[in-house]
Amino acid sequence: MEYSIVNTLWVLVAGFLVFFMNLGFAAVESGFARSKNAVNILSKNFIVFAVSSLGFMLLGWGLMQGGTNPFVGTENLWILGKTAEELNNTPYYLSGNGIPFWANFFWMLVFCGTAATIVSGAVAERIKYISFIVFSFILTLLIYPITGHWIWGGGWLSTLKVPFHDFAGSTAVHSVGGWAALTGAALLGPRIGKYGSDGKPKAIPGHNMSLAVIGLFILWLGWFGFNPGSTMSLDNPADVAHIVLTTNTSAIAAILTSTATSWLFIGKPDLGMTINGCLAGLVAVTAGCAYVTVAGSLIIGAIAGVVVVFAVLFFDKIKIDDPVGATSVHLVCGVLGTLLVGLFAKEGVTSYAQHSGIFYGGGAGLLVSQLIGTVSVAAFVLVTSTLVWIIIDKTLGLRVSPEEEIDGLDIGEHGNHAYPDFVIAPPVTSATAVAAPDEAAGDVPVAAEAPPEPKPSSKPGVKITKVEIICKDSKLEALKNALTEIGITGMTVTHVLGCGLQRGQPEYYRGVPVETNLLPKVQVEVVVSKIPVSKVIETAKKVLYTGHIGDGKIFVYDVENVIKVRTGEEGYDALQDVE
Amino acid sequence: MEYSIVNTLWVLVAGFLVFFMNLGFAAVESGFARSKNAVNILSKNFIVFAVSSLGFMLLGWGLMQGGTNPFVGTENLWILGKTAEELNNTPYYLSGNGIPFWANFFWMLVFCGTAATIVSGAVAERIKYISFIVFSFILTLLIYPITGHWIWGGGWLSTLKVPFHDFAGSTAVHSVGGWAALTGAALLGPRIGKYGSDGKPKAIPGHNMSLAVIGLFILWLGWFGFNPGSTMSLDNPADVAHIVLTTNTSAIAAILTSTATSWLFIGKPDLGMTINGCLAGLVAVTAGCAYVTVAGSLIIGAIAGVVVVFAVLFFDKIKIDDPVGATSVHLVCGVLGTLLVGLFAKEGVTSYAQHSGIFYGGGAGLLVSQLIGTVSVAAFVLVTSTLVWIIIDKTLGLRVSPEEEIDGLDIGEHGNHAYPDFVIAPPVTSATAVAAPDEAAGDVPVAAEAPPEPKPSSKPGVKITKVEIICKDSKLEALKNALTEIGITGMTVTHVLGCGLQRGQPEYYRGVPVETNLLPKVQVEVVVSKIPVSKVIETAKKVLYTGHIGDGKIFVYDVENVIKVRTGEEGYDALQDVE
Amino acid sequence: MEYSIVNTLWVLVAGFLVFFMNLGFAAVESGFARSKNAVNILSKNFIVFAVSSLGFMLLGWGLMQGGTNPFVGTENLWILGKTAEELNNTPYYLSGNGIPFWANFFWMLVFCGTAATIVSGAVAERIKYISFIVFSFILTLLIYPITGHWIWGGGWLSTLKVPFHDFAGSTAVHSVGGWAALTGAALLGPRIGKYGSDGKPKAIPGHNMSLAVIGLFILWLGWFGFNPGSTMSLDNPADVAHIVLTTNTSAIAAILTSTATSWLFIGKPDLGMTINGCLAGLVAVTAGCAYVTVAGSLIIGAIAGVVVVFAVLFFDKIKIDDPVGATSVHLVCGVLGTLLVGLFAKEGVTSYAQHSGIFYGGGAGLLVSQLIGTVSVAAFVLVTSTLVWIIIDKTLGLRVSPEEEIDGLDIGEHGNHAYPDFVIAPPVTSATAVAAPDEAAGDVPVAAEAPPEPKPSSKPGVKITKVEIICKDSKLEALKNALTEIGITGMTVTHVLGCGLQRGQPEYYRGVPVETNLLPKVQVEVVVSKIPVSKVIETAKKVLYTGHIGDGKIFVYDVENVIKVRTGEEGYDALQDVE
Repeated sequence: MEYSIVNTLWVLVAGFLVFFMNLGFAAVESGFARSKNAVNILSKNFIVFAVSSLGFMLLGWGLMQGGTNPFVGTENLWILGKTAEELNNTPYYLSGNGIPFWANFFWMLVFCGTAATIVSGAVAERIKYISFIVFSFILTLLIYPITGHWIWGGGWLSTLKVPFHDFAGSTAVHSVGGWAALTGAALLGPRIGKYGSDGKPKAIPGHNMSLAVIGLFILWLGWFGFNPGSTMSLDNPADVAHIVLTTNTSAIAAILTSTATSWLFIGKPDLGMTINGCLAGLVAVTAGCAYVTVAGSLIIGAIAGVVVVFAVLFFDKIKIDDPVGATSVHLVCGVLGTLLVGLFAKEGVTSYAQHSGIFYGGGAGLLVSQLIGTVSVAAFVLVTSTLVWIIIDKTLGLRVSPEEEIDGLDIGEHGNHAYPDFVIAPPVTSATAVAAPDEAAGDVPVAAEAPPEPKPSSKPGVKITKVEIICKDSKLEALKNALTEIGITGMTVTHVLGCGLQRGQPEYYRGVPVETNLLPKVQVEVVVSKIPVSKVIETAKKVLYTGHIGDGKIFVYDVENVIKVRTGEEGYDALQDVE
Repeated sequence: MEYSIVNTLWVLVAGFLVFFMNLGFAAVESGFARSKNAVNILSKNFIVFAVSSLGFMLLGWGLMQGGTNPFVGTENLWILGKTAEELNNTPYYLSGNGIPFWANFFWMLVFCGTAATIVSGAVAERIKYISFIVFSFILTLLIYPITGHWIWGGGWLSTLKVPFHDFAGSTAVHSVGGWAALTGAALLGPRIGKYGSDGKPKAIPGHNMSLAVIGLFILWLGWFGFNPGSTMSLDNPADVAHIVLTTNTSAIAAILTSTATSWLFIGKPDLGMTINGCLAGLVAVTAGCAYVTVAGSLIIGAIAGVVVVFAVLFFDKIKIDDPVGATSVHLVCGVLGTLLVGLFAKEGVTSYAQHSGIFYGGGAGLLVSQLIGTVSVAAFVLVTSTLVWIIIDKTLGLRVSPEEEIDGLDIGEHGNHAYPDFVIAPPVTSATAVAAPDEAAGDVPVAAEAPPEPKPSSKPGVKITKVEIICKDSKLEALKNALTEIGITGMTVTHVLGCGLQRGQPEYYRGVPVETNLLPKVQVEVVVSKIPVSKVIETAKKVLYTGHIGDGKIFVYDVENVIKVRTGEEGYDALQDVE
Repeated sequence: MEYSIVNTLWVLVAGFLVFFMNLGFAAVESGFARSKNAVNILSKNFIVFAVSSLGFMLLGWGLMQGGTNPFVGTENLWILGKTAEELNNTPYYLSGNGIPFWANFFWMLVFCGTAATIVSGAVAERIKYISFIVFSFILTLLIYPITGHWIWGGGWLSTLKVPFHDFAGSTAVHSVGGWAALTGAALLGPRIGKYGSDGKPKAIPGHNMSLAVIGLFILWLGWFGFNPGSTMSLDNPADVAHIVLTTNTSAIAAILTSTATSWLFIGKPDLGMTINGCLAGLVAVTAGCAYVTVAGSLIIGAIAGVVVVFAVLFFDKIKIDDPVGATSVHLVCGVLGTLLVGLFAKEGVTSYAQHSGIFYGGGAGLLVSQLIGTVSVAAFVLVTSTLVWIIIDKTLGLRVSPEEEIDGLDIGEHGNHAYPDFVIAPPVTSATAVAAPDEAAGDVPVAAEAPPEPKPSSKPGVKITKVEIICKDSKLEALKNALTEIGITGMTVTHVLGCGLQRGQPEYYRGVPVETNLLPKVQVEVVVSKIPVSKVIETAKKVLYTGHIGDGKIFVYDVENVIKVRTGEEGYDALQDVE
């Protein structure tokens, strides 16, 4: 076979852009989640491409592209063992474009990875890392390749009288990922705190909108590979250019209608909704990008932008908790876009457009095929993915413990913090409301269900004193060590801003000095009774003293009482483990 | 017409890179702004591409490219209604490259989007969202296309005896965006707190330098589409390679000179200045990238890197408050780069270089054309954009209220926080200095201008007590609810670090255990008088008790007095709404 | 010469991807460092490309590609002065691909930049900015070009009987950068706080895992340019596709094995290790990507993923402190991948694969060549880079002062903060442990080594009172100014969350209202003695009063004593500079 150099180049470059969508998904999904789960989501969206690459390489490609059996591929199931020569002579779907085997394979692979990535967002913030990895592996090894075979691998949906039309995968990729996401989110149940005691959904805001916007634009860029690259050929450049435009036009229409819908119905142009809207427009036009006119894509995007807003609210209402809106975007708009092809397709807009939909006089035939494809894919993925989720649940378990969920999966699953240098705010939403002490705390000793009785101080008259030390950040460690040496181990450290006469090192920002009469300081509080206050003060002075302005101040206060929660001890006694 | 497959591929790939610059602008501009306005800036730079796509599709393209009328395009004004066949037979500028219509259109579109994005940064942190959207729509529908027609659409500047030289848009894109930005920033006036009572500018540091650097590199990458892609052809690959090098060389020269200038004149190599410097070099070489030698581009970049530093300081001085330096970069260096073509152009360096500038014996003719083009574009954009800004100001209003500005546009315009999980520092600059209570607060009741007189406690002898509870973050919500149930609604929550004997779950970072003897805790303070202290303590103990180390401590202090600012009530009475 | 349009396009697009790796390195390296050094690392990785572009343009290219002298290029040393025509007729390595000079140069340039960038990570958080700039300049001007000439420029390693095989630069780029990084990290010594008094390494967690993952994916994307683009030709598209797959396959195998290794040996799937693992797989396959089968690349990646985990732990153990793992990734896996070519190479897998390794019956010849190349490059770079580091150390100095290092290089070197709006947590690790007051503090006055004696209050009976004001963030500045006017300059400001009856502006997140009964507030504490408490209260009330709910509260407490650390003054006297 003669290779086409330019078609190979096109498929590779487009494939690189689709590969890059892995970062897009990682960024949108972790941006839309809480900071305590950021490492976990980044890890999931990172490893999922490795897992799906392996699954697709081992078996998936053969099931999808190996031969023309109507239901599943049966040839070339084990491609790793074959030589390049054998592989380049492998017949595959869309042959005739002159693309070498591995370029074709790479293109199929990055698509497969996308389907698995979609699931990640919907099950975020509560699924076990290992369970997600196993599900992704099976999805890309078995489920995605089989429906993919039906649509793109020469299977039965591609041989209907009016073939099922899904140019770049509104159904084959997005709704497959979407159905798997839906079953996962439903079986996992909502995150702790997502629903109040009144059953109403509560907002759990994403932790980083900059990250989400970075992800959005990378996804949009990736779609310029995803849709136009699905030609896998530049033999007709006008077709490719047409698809670039329908893709872009649907996206921008959906941005505008989702923002407007949000503005009208929620009262403000919510950025999260604009992001979901843009993705909705991109997903919806993915099936029809080569079959509809540019004006048609404007209408498709406009519809998707409205639908996605209500879909997000709908899933919230029926208690499918999808932290990033993956089901609303990929499932709902994937189905929507597939069906709209039956209305908006226009024969001849590109060389791929061989049938017209209802609006262009093609009759209902195409819409019927679109319905058949949508329903059959839905049924297959719903059944198989539910089965897989349940098996995983019964073996590995699906969900982390409530305590791990409240503390965040980053520590529980990975032992990492995403942002260790930053002070994280206590949750402002009622994320812990449903977790009463006895239920949530897996480590409650059985015998001790009520707090101990108050134990009045054994030395009732003894004075208790709080010493509050304000000093430079850089002295904290030395101060802590010195206080530990004199027997104090309990202290509370607060980050404060000190305003005084001293000034910091000059800071500049684009040429203008930054005024900083509020300087970062730490405030260390210790409460003592046995250890003399004077000893604490002397120790602190020794550590902090440099003889320069800014050495800090020490304040002394009287304390009326102290209670130690665990033991019920009061006064002098309550301090004996930390002094 | 015969299509050129490889030219189409080149224009599409370059166009994708230019499209990606939308993320670059969003990231640089939001990184250079404060966190309280991040959602707003991200939203603006996101929706602006949708708005300009729509405007350019509806009318802009036709005004820019529709026929050879010297002043404005008059043909193909409404392209959405046309068939692909009609469009591909549309004559357009730069035809003969064999590029299908929609590829050509996409290229023009992503350029148009860039011009609108430039404005966003200069008017950031104070413009109403809707007003910015409307301005962007008009800019891309009318203003940009008309000057674009003069330069690139066959209009009068392209038919001068020595034609105006602006290869990739130092003037057509950057200075058009820059003039519109300048008028916007001037009419809006500086941000609250930008100038002290002494009239001197104050630094308002950008909130996220990582984000700004991400944006910078994406912009630089995009420029490898922007400039070389403006050939819209690979027929002469040496030309394209030459333009890649001049683009890169100007950028690196400007990085070095801007950093050095900052080091010498400000005392430190300011990262913001290095970023602005790099962009300055890229903007400055945009006009001449195909007309100057690589050595010439080194000099052009070096000049731009110095000029931009002083331009930033200059605009600060004349009280044009441009939070991201857009005018310094795009306007000043756009004009600079356009004029320098008149000096540095060298006939024959590429096939596009038909005229030499003064330094290469071409005489003053080219410089005169460059001046004519610069001045005429400046005049047109200054007048039209001022007009549009004023009309918007009189109808929708341009600027948000001072209170919204101080609180941040994210909440005011979008109802979103960009980083809800992070503790945001109180502003260290005098951002609120000019906003005296009566001026700024739109909600001050007219009758109550002075605080009420002190109202001594009605129960003067009653003891007031502060109870300070230190506990785990995850208990906060339950504690809050329990305290509310016993009648306490007023409490102060502080994020602190507790040092004690207990240890957290082991954390690892790249294989080494992380030492965490300072654990995140919350400190909840309530002050009570009517409600007995013992009741508060009992309630807290019940909620916090698990029987494990780390359950927390409770401290009790005497309070001398409490004053409620709104009512002037003191002591016992001041607590009656929050107990 | 006839140009190849499509080869030029390929080299340029691949070169853009490699250029983009600069952002990848900047993001991974700054994400793996602490926030106080983020500006510095971003600056280093930003300016390094400018510096290396200049160095390579001035002299480097000629040393690397200028003629066939076995040890160093001697022709075309000064390319800036030449015309395009002269340059395009310059003979260079890999000619015959029809690529114009500047495209070829751009490709070589972005590779050169990569080598310099690798060094940045290993020396991070303690090297002087200027010293790093100077080292990078010399590395790219002299060191990298000479070894590059041996391997790719027609030098002696390329003319061995079995030529040294390094297709895309495991040795030429990664290990060169890696050896330079190793010498730098060793000479600088570990960061303060990296090793405890017991000599054991301590984790210093990176500040931003989102940023690190952004960087990782950008690097991976870049590698699709780096390796396949090293063909510099699309004449045989199957070769290029093969290289895309070996590159991807090694990466995904290494992700899986590094994660598994981390899980088994450290106990958790550490995200940092997964990131390092992926990069290890990419580096390791860089030498052999065109010479090994896809199955071979799977094994190479799998090995690299295991090796890198132990390499990180090993360097930690031998006290080479490399904050980002650059030596483990680029040096260890660069050497590993180079040697594995001697085992896994298989003649004929691509048209570049002319020799087989041991596993495919090629005998030990190739492995011997690989060893010769690895050792000779190591020796040259170790010697020259050590020399350069030492010269810099003796002249400019290598390391910042301990105090600057503790405070962070962002302020010390750049006068900037990376995240000024965010509250940064005090370090949770013992980063300051080794810096006892007298050693670290360069500003300790010699005469005053002990803190002054306590100076009891001159007015012992006078009451001291703390006034604690809780109010809105936006009132802070006005309050501060008003308190300063009545003579108070010392105050402590804490960011707290206030819970009360008032509600904030409604916030939404993707359509659901965000519950915010915890509102951000500031707590301002002043301690007064001379200034009457009533005056403080009156002043605060005047500033804070608006008549609306949420005006705030003022609490008054008795203070037993105050000590000023610098002077030893107590009580009334200790307050006289701040009241």
